[in-house]
Amino acid sequence: MSNRAESVLVGLIGEGVMPSLTPPMHEREADVQGLRLLYRPIDLLELTLPATAVGDLLTAAQRMGFNGLNITHPCKQLVLEHLDEISDDARRLGAVNTVLLQNGRLIGHNTDFSGFGSALADGLPGATLDRVVQLGAGGAGSAVAYALLTAGVGTLDLVDMDPARAAERAAELGGLFPEATVTPRSTNELSQIMPLADGLVHCTPIGMAAHPGLPLDIDLLEPRHWVADIVYRPIETQLVREAHAKGCDVLDGGRMAVGQAADAFQLVTGREANRERMRAHFLELIAVEDAAAPELAKAAH
Amino acid sequence: MSNRAESVLVGLIGEGVMPSLTPPMHEREADVQGLRLLYRPIDLLELTLPATAVGDLLTAAQRMGFNGLNITHPCKQLVLEHLDEISDDARRLGAVNTVLLQNGRLIGHNTDFSGFGSALADGLPGATLDRVVQLGAGGAGSAVAYALLTAGVGTLDLVDMDPARAAERAAELGGLFPEATVTPRSTNELSQIMPLADGLVHCTPIGMAAHPGLPLDIDLLEPRHWVADIVYRPIETQLVREAHAKGCDVLDGGRMAVGQAADAFQLVTGREANRERMRAHFLELIAVEDAAAPELAKAAH
Repeated sequence: MSNRAESVLVGLIGEGVMPSLTPPMHEREADVQGLRLLYRPIDLLELTLPATAVGDLLTAAQRMGFNGLNITHPCKQLVLEHLDEISDDARRLGAVNTVLLQNGRLIGHNTDFSGFGSALADGLPGATLDRVVQLGAGGAGSAVAYALLTAGVGTLDLVDMDPARAAERAAELGGLFPEATVTPRSTNELSQIMPLADGLVHCTPIGMAAHPGLPLDIDLLEPRHWVADIVYRPIETQLVREAHAKGCDVLDGGRMAVGQAADAFQLVTGREANRERMRAHFLELIAVEDAAAPELAKAAH
Repeated sequence: MSNRAESVLVGLIGEGVMPSLTPPMHEREADVQGLRLLYRPIDLLELTLPATAVGDLLTAAQRMGFNGLNITHPCKQLVLEHLDEISDDARRLGAVNTVLLQNGRLIGHNTDFSGFGSALADGLPGATLDRVVQLGAGGAGSAVAYALLTAGVGTLDLVDMDPARAAERAAELGGLFPEATVTPRSTNELSQIMPLADGLVHCTPIGMAAHPGLPLDIDLLEPRHWVADIVYRPIETQLVREAHAKGCDVLDGGRMAVGQAADAFQLVTGREANRERMRAHFLELIAVEDAAAPELAKAAH
């Protein structure tokens, strides 16, 4: 038996990552599992480094004994060229948010998509997935759409403020999932497509503290719709609150945040994370940090 | 109260540092104190980097969120030019073994000398320090001589296989401590100077597993001499064992190893290390790793 305790060093590379809740989520889950884990945010803005520095930071991480990294905006695509190996899903998606450093090799994964997939399965078990409307086709939206199509959504209506982006993403996803129908839509079409949809997924910044409001006319929601938001600060967005009040089944953005963290934890440590415990930690962290709205965190639990 | 646990990330830069006991010593002391601390060896040999890479590794450590570094052979002098600030003792000694990374600044310290100083005070309390013979005037020997002179040794006889090195070190140390007499000596003079000495300090590799034997004629030791060894693998060197058998008070090399680690722990974490607890951990680590000689570890405790 060795006296050298197993230990895991993880980092998060991106812009504005200092307040991220992913580091404390990983550390607390590791604590419960008796694993020495330290998770450092590595903030490009604080370091005044450009996004293209991600390659140098990977080298630094290798030299300094890191076991894994999460990668976030604006490096999820830039990181690809620096990797030795990329999982099939991350390669198809064209984005990596988790890098394993193993035996001198850099191996890329994507737990944004898998995290949303498990969030959907855990938080809305049994939801009908035949036809879904998705608002927002940016980076996070791409991972969510990929997860929806992987989960078996047959018809996906992709709505974006930027019609060209919606068209481009729909074409890409349609190519990856030829059995599904992925259609770019404008916001004008929502009144026609919502009556046909089983559920709504929201992937724009609307509802965040800095962007309050609703991303669509709430009258388009019916109690039979399920609603998933990926915004999690606040945990109870106006969309989640009003959809819940209408009687819709809702999935808050915390489930995806926890799902991506739990999947990354498992990849990096080789141990399964307890998702319910991790979600409880997450809600506690949110409640402490967003002290103005602790009752919302409880309500959304 | 913050949910973000205080956490400390430390590294050790040098050649062949993978088996160092300093990382587990720091981690176990932190565990007892409820502090999340992770200590990574950063081995130039494994990374196939030259000693001059220490500057790049300091930059990497800053970017990746390290709080402190230990620096060992062959970088203790090379690191000086990369620091923003150096403690008075480390500057006088011309060697840094501990770097603090604080608010974007790199601050150098030397806990080799302070660690030997506290080892001497803890392990040989009340020892007469008027006149001391020191064997070995290399890098570790310089720190030990500096500590002896700081502790009040009045006459220091410096013996080295390389007369030029002994002369150079004696001149340097004499300049730093003008009240003391520091004299370079050859091994031939030991029979003349040992009868005048209060104690003997040993700073050559002789007695390590790879260099077995005695560094001087054991008949030169009298029971009234105290004997300090800085070799700690094995913890009970032939010198320590035979000196102890003669009735000498002895200080094994583990005290200095623990002393430098305890002082570095305090600098990096801002918390005092419990030296007796850290020594107990150290002896346990030695006993497990040198499983061939557990009884020696106990005997030297």
